[in-house]
This record gives sequence, structure tokens and C-alpha cells, in this order.
Amino acid sequence: MIKIEPGELLAKVTYPEDLRKLSLEELVPFCDELRDFIISTVSVNGGHFGASLGVVELSTALHYVFNTPYDQLIWDVGHQAYGHKILTGRRDLFHTNRIYKGISGFPKRSESEYDTFGVGHSSTSISAAVGMAIASRQKGEDRQVVAVIGDGAMTGGMAFEALNHGGGANADMLVILNDNCMSIDPNVGGMMEYLTDIRTSNTFNRLRDDVWKLLGKVKSIGPATRNLAAKLEDMLTASQSKPGMLFEALGFRYFGPIDGHDVVHLARILDDLKKIPGPKLLHVVTVKGKGYELAEKDQTKWHAPGLFDKVTGEIKKSISTSPKPPKYQDVFGWTMIELAKENPKVMGVTPAMPSGCSLGFMMKEMPERAFDVGIAEQHAVTFSAGLATQGMVPFCNIYSTFMQRAYDQVIHDVCIQNLNVVFCLDRGGLVGADGATHHGAYDLAYFRCIPNLVVSAPMDEQELRNLMYTASQDNMGPFSIRYPRGEGVMVNWKTPLEIVPVGKGRKIAEGEEVAVLSIGHPGNFVKAAFAELAKEGIYPAHYDMRYVKPIDEEMLHEVFARYKKIITIEDGCITGGFGSAVIEFMADNAYFAQIKRLGVPDRFVHHGTPEELWAECGYDKNAVIETIRNMVAEKVS
Amino acid sequence: MIKIEPGELLAKVTYPEDLRKLSLEELVPFCDELRDFIISTVSVNGGHFGASLGVVELSTALHYVFNTPYDQLIWDVGHQAYGHKILTGRRDLFHTNRIYKGISGFPKRSESEYDTFGVGHSSTSISAAVGMAIASRQKGEDRQVVAVIGDGAMTGGMAFEALNHGGGANADMLVILNDNCMSIDPNVGGMMEYLTDIRTSNTFNRLRDDVWKLLGKVKSIGPATRNLAAKLEDMLTASQSKPGMLFEALGFRYFGPIDGHDVVHLARILDDLKKIPGPKLLHVVTVKGKGYELAEKDQTKWHAPGLFDKVTGEIKKSISTSPKPPKYQDVFGWTMIELAKENPKVMGVTPAMPSGCSLGFMMKEMPERAFDVGIAEQHAVTFSAGLATQGMVPFCNIYSTFMQRAYDQVIHDVCIQNLNVVFCLDRGGLVGADGATHHGAYDLAYFRCIPNLVVSAPMDEQELRNLMYTASQDNMGPFSIRYPRGEGVMVNWKTPLEIVPVGKGRKIAEGEEVAVLSIGHPGNFVKAAFAELAKEGIYPAHYDMRYVKPIDEEMLHEVFARYKKIITIEDGCITGGFGSAVIEFMADNAYFAQIKRLGVPDRFVHHGTPEELWAECGYDKNAVIETIRNMVAEKVS
Repeated sequence: MIKIEPGELLAKVTYPEDLRKLSLEELVPFCDELRDFIISTVSVNGGHFGASLGVVELSTALHYVFNTPYDQLIWDVGHQAYGHKILTGRRDLFHTNRIYKGISGFPKRSESEYDTFGVGHSSTSISAAVGMAIASRQKGEDRQVVAVIGDGAMTGGMAFEALNHGGGANADMLVILNDNCMSIDPNVGGMMEYLTDIRTSNTFNRLRDDVWKLLGKVKSIGPATRNLAAKLEDMLTASQSKPGMLFEALGFRYFGPIDGHDVVHLARILDDLKKIPGPKLLHVVTVKGKGYELAEKDQTKWHAPGLFDKVTGEIKKSISTSPKPPKYQDVFGWTMIELAKENPKVMGVTPAMPSGCSLGFMMKEMPERAFDVGIAEQHAVTFSAGLATQGMVPFCNIYSTFMQRAYDQVIHDVCIQNLNVVFCLDRGGLVGADGATHHGAYDLAYFRCIPNLVVSAPMDEQELRNLMYTASQDNMGPFSIRYPRGEGVMVNWKTPLEIVPVGKGRKIAEGEEVAVLSIGHPGNFVKAAFAELAKEGIYPAHYDMRYVKPIDEEMLHEVFARYKKIITIEDGCITGGFGSAVIEFMADNAYFAQIKRLGVPDRFVHHGTPEELWAECGYDKNAVIETIRNMVAEKVS
Repeated sequence: MIKIEPGELLAKVTYPEDLRKLSLEELVPFCDELRDFIISTVSVNGGHFGASLGVVELSTALHYVFNTPYDQLIWDVGHQAYGHKILTGRRDLFHTNRIYKGISGFPKRSESEYDTFGVGHSSTSISAAVGMAIASRQKGEDRQVVAVIGDGAMTGGMAFEALNHGGGANADMLVILNDNCMSIDPNVGGMMEYLTDIRTSNTFNRLRDDVWKLLGKVKSIGPATRNLAAKLEDMLTASQSKPGMLFEALGFRYFGPIDGHDVVHLARILDDLKKIPGPKLLHVVTVKGKGYELAEKDQTKWHAPGLFDKVTGEIKKSISTSPKPPKYQDVFGWTMIELAKENPKVMGVTPAMPSGCSLGFMMKEMPERAFDVGIAEQHAVTFSAGLATQGMVPFCNIYSTFMQRAYDQVIHDVCIQNLNVVFCLDRGGLVGADGATHHGAYDLAYFRCIPNLVVSAPMDEQELRNLMYTASQDNMGPFSIRYPRGEGVMVNWKTPLEIVPVGKGRKIAEGEEVAVLSIGHPGNFVKAAFAELAKEGIYPAHYDMRYVKPIDEEMLHEVFARYKKIITIEDGCITGGFGSAVIEFMADNAYFAQIKRLGVPDRFVHHGTPEELWAECGYDKNAVIETIRNMVAEKVS
């Protein structure tokens, strides 16, 4: 954690009220200082990068013009909100960004009254803004409500739902479309092309000018023509709004597009818009990574680059003397290509995360068989269901926390119809620095109650590959595989593909007195714990269950017959999760054992490194050791 | 079940191949017969009504023109698909529609190869169609893919996500926008106004004709003007597409609007569209209830009217000699007004179900405090969160099965932020005739794993009112109340409002040997069972737990201390549900009891009456009696 000194103007601004004391012209050097402060801090402390650089001027202009925190400012997908945080009382804490017990990388209501809405997931801001605007109207307040949303987030269905309602309800609100042609990866879909059309076309404006001239000439012809000319004028005025017709169609007045890096112009326009009632949309064009050349040029790489040398732009990689295991993500990506080469039915689907989940590998090599569908989890799942009806085997990769967005589609479109869709739930378990909004804590519980769905989690790379291979077989029905963010444990991960019989676990260690049942990656914590316990002469048994559903009942009969002290461990919520599946079995079969469930407790867990959070939640290696020691000593808690 | 005789032409048509033998002109009388067959059958057997009458011509034209089942036809919100079912091999089964073991009221893949996609929930069809189209392209097939979607369903966010992807990916597909200005209730929002504009405006077409004339005159002026005139022509051609700009913006070619009741014209246009590649949208204007005058005039009432006299239009009500308890829905609706009158913070939100959930009562009496936001569950929840940030207490009423659509918003926007939003989950439990897609079977399981969320279910009207009153208090945080479809048990339901302490159950009967723990309405099955068991001298205990979360631990300690035979009963899935909460408590506290969990088993349950389905699933009154008898005889299964 290295603290950066702010520039002269920035040093004067702790809260927006300080910012408002600057002259309009001073905002230009102020933005330079703010940008430099973000670059310097992120280069040495890490964090998201490009998004916040793109909205330095916008953040400044918004807090300059609007009366925050009375006026409500909502940042969609909050990792663009670093400037906002620095301007609202958190400049001197900014170096603790995303660090355990430090400030959150996203706006967070419990952190500041300026953070009006928690925004980790995409496309929520307009809905929240409609709610705020209608509540203000109902309370008779003159509060302004502003939502800032990226063009990527705008493809999320709920943004459209919110525009439809806000437009129809004539809510007093301003939506700022921050159009940088990028989410984390380049945007896709019809809307992206539409926005590109708007950005690049001046045709209509030029044509309009020409037509005024023509009309001047025609007006001399006669009264019928004059009348027509008047109609034509109206029509041309109407066609003026063509750039924003998509939004106008939903009831929003459209303004723009304007340059999002001209802070003075931005402030003036925002000031004008404040005075216009009703639903409004301002289209602002920005450059992701603006002001840091390398980031402007490779926006995906610089979305969240890690630590880097600010001057040379060299991204620092941790240097390891021995070869490291690959990320689970990359094993997924490579294995997709391997499976697809052998099996023409295999296809890949991701909602806007080709880099994050590594489906990008396949999209590059087989562009006709792997798809980025935009920030659109619901569509991603039902699109996959559509593919499956035609005999394809789509692998639909969605982060565990974002799968919450497509829960109904999993039930209604895939599982009821028993279609062969494979759900790869990336970022299963506690993800670390992104915090409460991003932890993949609930999937085992919310998937376990769905009929027909196979629920599995690999303990290592080999199991991930084998589960993927198993899931790609014909007539497997709905199949989910969840795995964590980051590195696995096998340097030599490219093992031969083998079927993992559905509903079969594996015994990793025979043991005495205590049995540990693990699911997924935490099985490795158990292994590490056992190595230490062996030194104390404690030898518990270890079962890697692999499938939460169907659970290996034969194995559980063996476990409950032999052990009266049982620990379950999972990288997910213990309420209703894997451990609950084990105790349901116990109750249904009238076994009795002391059971201790380790996993994420029934509260929201904040940010930190995964190691810090596993320890906090009590299911890291040390917690396993401690729990077993206590059980062996019969001090079961 | 009364079987109706088809007319002469309809009698010849069992499959679409028979239909295609008719001449184009014969389709007109054929449609009359099809319409009459639907009216006659529904009037004596019940079912959805208005939607299918509106698409008689469309259904006929589609099967006439397209090569079904090779070509893929998808009906969004399948209750419009009665005509489709009758034309595709199920005419002679149509009288068993929605009846236990009869045909489903929705398209269902397992029922017919013509039912390409199961469509109980709204707005899924375009996503499925994009998947089918892209799979066909990948397989090198020339299969046509057609999705029929209503204007209401078009407001669902995932329809927009799918248009965005389909347009961007240039999928070969046809979307038919069936625009009848209605879902179940009148549609709302910006898009509805937009479509109305299109339907009612001929201005652009007329203006265009006038302008051609003007251009004819101007062309004589000179070459610069000629050049401009050419540009102006282009522009006018472009403005021709203005009606469909919303869809054009997303990459779909727009056609229409056309009259959806002119079957000959429809068939001709569909035949033309078959030959055009790429993403296309045909805007068809229809009248819900078309051909049955009363249904055309009051479309909400006639959405699914129950049985009626076809000639007089009199809707048959079941006649009861004694006063009947009200529906839970109406108790909710009346109590909302009662609460809102006392508490200015209380507001109401429904995604397109004001009649179904009875929020319509409040929308009528307090239109500024109760909102229909369209078919937009995701937005409904986050809009409610926005209201709550401003100190309001929104009651967001969503059917249990549709709440699956907003699962992420419940977690991310409400519960992480601990906002005071009250979720009223209508249709909790097995709903009956709508079947697998509509059962509210999973909510107790999928809500129970979310931190901060109170999960409750009332056993009767009084408890519903009291839970609503409790939830409306300040600082309660996220609070859910789930209750079933249909009548409660109290004729005198309007009891004084009282607080139900959070996490406190109630003991209904002291007992011996066996304790039954119930949640929600099935507590009444237990009461009824006890009345019969008393005759046999069996007196179990009965606890109405009221809260699944936080569960009443004090009460559970009492139960487990006193009873070794325990039954849990819930109108929801037993995997991860209420019963699992009880056994989690048992395991955590090292109690041991024989536990039998009654509820929905781990498979999809189809349609029938609730009574038939409760019996099938083994948790109706008789099943409770049987289970207790067995337990008392120590024949615990």
C-alpha cells in the first residue's frame, strides 16, 4: 500500500463542495492531476484502470455541477468510479482500494453517503435511478438523479426494462451513456453497430443544411409547395433525432453525442440538462484508458493490469523460480478447443467475458463455434438452450455470481426441457478483491435444488478437464461444473481425457475417526492440512465428492457406516450447500454423526485476498487442522 | 372434459401437411372453424382464451407457409399456442388441455415435435430462435426459424438482449411481433407508446408521396440540386424505416405493421419473407380475443375466464351455499391499501401482474404509489431497491416462479445493501393447471441461502396480513412473504394488524411422540389430518414455524428435546428447502431424530389441480395421515 501525493489543485479537494470552489477553467488542470493520481496509485497498488481513466472529466463535471450527495449519482458497474471516490472524501484512503479492510473497489452504500447504490454487477443503474426519481417525486423533493452507464452495460436486458419504465413513467432523471465502445472486451451486437453509426456519421447534419438551402429556392414556387416545404422542415427536424431514436422510442430525450474529455463543455451541458424535466439521455463519447497511451491502445489488457511501471508501461509479473500451475480459466479455454476439435457438436458461449474466462482462445481459433453474446446472461443461457435443441452441446461459461442473472433461464429453458447444456461456472467461491458483489458463494445451493441438473466441481485441473469431457457426451442433460478464479495445482495439467462417472466421488485418503468430505478446490486445503496433521499422528479420511448432485450415495453409506465425526468443506455458502446435501442424506437414511460444515457463513463477505477471506470464513488449511484437532479431542464445537 | 366436433375443413386437418392441401382462399373459412373450435372447447373446459383467439390467422398462415416441424416455430408465452396445438396433431386431445395427465396448456417439447421450445415464461423465444438459427447455419441446413412474440413480452429485457445478439450476428431468422397492446393487463412503458405511434401514424407514407412530386419539380433547377435531390431521396427512404427504427437500430429489418387477421395477406407476406436472409421483424397487429366480442371488449377479464356460456357470454361461477374465504391475492391487495393509508412510505410494485396479484386495487386507489413496470422482473426488484434507498418501503409482488428472473437483483441490489424491500411471492407452491413452468417450487430453497433476507410464509389470511404489517416497519431489511395461489381458509379475514416477531413460530397443538413442523399454507393440511387422527387416538404436536429464516431456534430446541419423530411439510422442493433448514439445525446442535421431509420431490411436476398434485407429491392431508400412522407404528420409511 503506497500512498501517492496529490497535485496542488487536487490537494485542495476533499469533498465536492471544495471542487465547486474552483473556476470552470481550473477544471482542466484539475482533471490532469486527478488522472495522474489514479495512474500513480493503480500502478503501485493495482486495481481496475481503464474505465476510471475514461471518466475523469465526467466524474469531475458531475460533482461540479450537481449538488451531491443530495443529488443522487449512480455509477453502473462501479469500477469506473475511482475518480468519484477520490472526489468524495476518500482521496487519502484510495491507496487501500480493494485491500482487506480497505475501501471497496466499487461504490458501496455503507462506505459513503456519496455512494448512493452498490454497483458491482452491470446494467442496474437505470432501474435504481427510476426508483430514486419516483420516490423523490412522491416525497415532493427536487432531487436530481443521474445514472452513468457504459455502452456495454446498456446491452444488459434490465437496462432496457428500466428505460422502458422510466420513459413511460416520465421520470425526472438523466442517463449518461458513457460510450467507449468497450466493456472489458470489445462490445458486440446490434447496438454496438448502431452506436458506431451515430458516432461516425455527420451525414444527417450536413444534409439538413443543404436542404435548408433547397427549401429557400423552392419556397418561391407556390402555396402548395410552401405547405409541403413546412412539412418537410418538420420531417427533417424529426430525422435530426435519428441518432437517438432507439432511446427516443422508449421515451427518453436524446442529447449528443459529445466529447467526454472536454470537461468545460461537459459541465456546461450538464448544467443545461439540469433544468430540463423528464427522462433524458446524454450520449458521451470517451476513450477507455484516456491519458495513458498504452491503455488507450490495448484496452482489454489494461482493464485491470495489475502492478506496472508507470513510466515504461511494463506490467510486473510475479517471478517464480519453478513453473507455476496454469489458471483454471486457461485450462478451460484450452480444453474447449481440444473437445471441439474432436466433437463437432461442442460450441462455446460467453456473456462478455471472453478474456476473463478464456473462451477467447476458442473464439479466435473457431470463430464460427464460439460466441460472445454481450452483457446478457439471460440470453446466453436461452441461446445455449436453442443451440441444444438442434443437437449441439453448448458450453455456456458464466461467472458464478453472474449466473444469478440467468437463474430462471437455467430452470425454465434448460432443466425443465432436460437439454444438454453445460454450464461452466467460473469464479465459483470467494473471488478476492472484487468483494461481496462478486463472490461466487451461492451457486451450489441455488443449483442443488433444480431437478435434472448435474452439479459438479473439480478439485484440480485434471478433474476440470475430465468433467468437461464427461459433460460433452451425448444425452448428459443439463450439467454444471464450477471452479474458482486463479491458479490450480498441477503444473502438468494436460492429462488424457477420461470420463468421470456421474455421481461418483473418489477416496483420496483412508483414515481413522474423522472423515473429511470436500467438494472442488478446497480439497487441496484438506490435503495440505493432512500433511501437517500426519506429523501429530492424526490420520483422517478424505473423500473428494466431485458431484454435489447426484451425490455419491454408495460412498456416503460407507462414510456414515465407518465414521461418526464428519467434516464437510466447500468454497460456498453452508446454508443449503454441499454440506446440507450430506446432512440431508444422513437424515433420510437415519444415520447419526457429528457433522461440522465448513464454508462461507450466512453473511456477506467483503473484499481481501482469497487467502485472507478463507481464513476469515474458517475454511482454509489452518481451519481444517483446527477443526480436526478439536474433533479428535472430542471438543466438537 | 367435453369434446367438441370440428367443422368440415378443420376435420380434414390433423397435421400441417393437411392444411397445406387447402387453397389460399379456403384459409378464410378454415380460420372461422378453428376460432369456433377454440371458443367452444374453452367455454366448456376452461383455459386461456384471448391470446389464442388473437393468433388464429397467424397460426394458420405460419403452418401453411413454413415447413413445420422441419422449420422451427417458437411461441413466446405459449398460452397463445392453442391454434398451433390443434393444427399439429392434438385436435382430438384438445379437450384434455391443462387437465391432469392431459395435454399441457403451453408448448412442450416432450409432447410434440412441433413444440420446438417450452415457453411458459415470457420473452424467451428470440433467444431460443437465435440459438436455433446459428446451430442451423453451423450445420449447413436451410431450416427457417420463426419466433412469435407479443408486445408485452417484448418489454422483457432478455428479448432485447436477444435482438441485440441476433442482429449483430446476422442470424437468419424471423421475429413476428404480435402486437395486441396487451399482455394479461394493458401494457405499460415507453415501448407501448412507441408502438402506438407506429400503428396510428400514416404521416410518413403520405409525406413521402408528396415529396416525390416536389422532387419532380425541383429536378429541373440544376445539377447541384439534382445531386441534393438524390440524397434527399435516400434520406426519405431511410426515414421510411422510422416506424421500426427501434428494431432497425439493433440490426433487424423491419416490415409492417400489417393486419394480423387477414390470413391471405399474412400468408403471402410470410412467403415473401422466407426468401429474405438475415434478421427480420414483421410487425403484426392483432386483437386479443378476436372474434368473440365480449373478449375483445374486456381483454383482461377474458384472458383466462374459466367456464362460460358461449352464447350469452355469462361466466360461470361456482355457487357456494356458505360464504367462501377470499383469495390470498385479494387479501394482499386489500391489505396493501390498508397499510399504505397508515404509512406514507409504503409503495407497491408489480411486473405486469396487477390483476393476477391484486395490486391493481391499490393502483386504482393510489396510482401515484403503486406501479406496473411491465414484464420486467429484474427491473421491478432494482426499481424497488431504488425506492428503498430514499426511505420508502416498497412491496414488490412477483410470482414465485417469476422471481427466478430477478434472483441476482434480490442478492446484489437488495440484500447486500440490506434495503427495506418487501418481496411478496405470490403463487408460492404448486400452482395447478399451468404446470412445471409455473410452479413456485424453489423459492424457499433459493431464498434461504441469501444473507440478510427474512423468509416467511403465512398459514392463513391473518398471518399474511400480520407478516405484511411486520415487514412494513422501519429498518426490517429485506423481507419475503410467500403464499399460494387461490383461496385461504378464513371467511372473516379482516383481523386487526399485529406484529409477528421475526424468527418466531407458533405452537398450534401440543402432542405426543410425533411433531409436525409446517411452513405456510400446508399447515392447514396438517390441521385437517389431525382431526382424523384424533379419531384413532393419535395426537401429534403441530408447530407453524412461520419463518424459514431466521428459524425459531428456541422452538426447535423444544421440539428436538421432546420429540424423536419429526415431520416437516412445505409446499416447495425438499432439496434445500424448509425441511433442510430444520435438519441443518439438528446437525449443528447434535440432536438426533427420525425426520421425514414432505414436499415437492426432486423432479419436475406437471399440471393438474393443486389437490391432484399435492397427492401425487405426497404432502396432502392423506399423506400426512399416512406418514404419521407409519411413524407411530415405527415403520418410518
